[in-house]
Amino acid sequence: MNAALDPVKAIVFDTFGTLVDWRGSIARDLSAWGRVQGFDADWTRLADRWRGRYQPQLERVRSGAIAFVPLDALHAEALDALLPEFGLGGLSDAQRRHVNRVWHRLDAWPDVVPGLTRLKRRFVIAPLSNGNIALLVDLAKHNALPWDAIFSAEHFRRYKPDPQTYLGVARQLDLAPHEVMLGAAHNGDLRAARGAGLRTAFVPRPTEHGPAQTQDLAADEAWDVIARDLEDLAARMGC
Amino acid sequence: MNAALDPVKAIVFDTFGTLVDWRGSIARDLSAWGRVQGFDADWTRLADRWRGRYQPQLERVRSGAIAFVPLDALHAEALDALLPEFGLGGLSDAQRRHVNRVWHRLDAWPDVVPGLTRLKRRFVIAPLSNGNIALLVDLAKHNALPWDAIFSAEHFRRYKPDPQTYLGVARQLDLAPHEVMLGAAHNGDLRAARGAGLRTAFVPRPTEHGPAQTQDLAADEAWDVIARDLEDLAARMGC
Repeated sequence: MNAALDPVKAIVFDTFGTLVDWRGSIARDLSAWGRVQGFDADWTRLADRWRGRYQPQLERVRSGAIAFVPLDALHAEALDALLPEFGLGGLSDAQRRHVNRVWHRLDAWPDVVPGLTRLKRRFVIAPLSNGNIALLVDLAKHNALPWDAIFSAEHFRRYKPDPQTYLGVARQLDLAPHEVMLGAAHNGDLRAARGAGLRTAFVPRPTEHGPAQTQDLAADEAWDVIARDLEDLAARMGC
Repeated sequence: MNAALDPVKAIVFDTFGTLVDWRGSIARDLSAWGRVQGFDADWTRLADRWRGRYQPQLERVRSGAIAFVPLDALHAEALDALLPEFGLGGLSDAQRRHVNRVWHRLDAWPDVVPGLTRLKRRFVIAPLSNGNIALLVDLAKHNALPWDAIFSAEHFRRYKPDPQTYLGVARQLDLAPHEVMLGAAHNGDLRAARGAGLRTAFVPRPTEHGPAQTQDLAADEAWDVIARDLEDLAARMGC
């Protein structure tokens, strides 16, 4: 193991894309539900359009245009705006709530549980996600993610890549920034974490956005670790 | 199971006394350390005197006399004041830090891990403690406590029994207060949780304060569950 990584005591993980396959999971979950309920729609396209609203929504919070609101509420707002486009404008409130909570039911990539289980032996492991706390707890239950703690934008009332999110983890764990590593499939997230003094590990998820993905296919900086997946990260971290 | 408990989805636990034996652990840990370092002291009495400063310290925060500070800092302040009385006024800063962090190394009562493991199958389980976040994460690592999340006074910047701590858990889990239960060995903690609308479970720890304990030997109200220990609580909650 790289000696610069000896001080690392905690590894926190980006969640959407890095740990869970939001696009595939939303399509699988809602197409099965739609069949039972008698709805048909292009669920994969809904997932893409929904996620497409994410960064502009967060930017309204990050810029101070609106006060902090948890991600569940931003997801619900975007969903309400999108449903008519998919012929689903007539969904009831209960149905909208069920659809919105699909983000609590996303499936992890297959290497995630075995990789985290190995890493947990030597490190404090936790998500550091823009997902709200209830969402992250539900994702952990759904996938049996063996977390030691939960770190959410909701705790800090700021969305990544605000430096106070990465520094907030270090402060709450009573660690220096270089004792904390971020694992992520997104170069931009790692860049912000490195800027705050954290160590960085890139794990590619080249089909997060489907077969035609063009972004984040590879590391675009010399991150401290560049791993194939979470099992490979565990091996590289001596677990 | 009592039908009033059907809505319960999460059970949070008081930690010092309820889950971990602070008095016995401090005596065991520090007497072993003292033998190696060449110090002798009445470690059990130190534990009692140290814990005796706890409620008055918290009261200074709860009353607004001082701003919120994490429990590690309050423990360190009390330790500095107490050490001379035990002939330990000459400890170095590193030794004081090691002694202060004994609160991160406390041992769980023997029913805790098997009871939590059973409860985790049906419920979200987490501590709700006045211990700071790093302390609670370290206690979980030390004892392999299978938490789904960590809730600390540090998250809310208020110490129990402030109602905002109990209500903060419900809000962060996106649950109503009556969907959350507090498990505790202290009637006062349960009284405050009930006042905030939570369900309540009493688990006696009649030797928390040693063989001469006089307080909290039994439930003093009709709590929703009165269990022998955490395994019994799991059975009563249908796990």
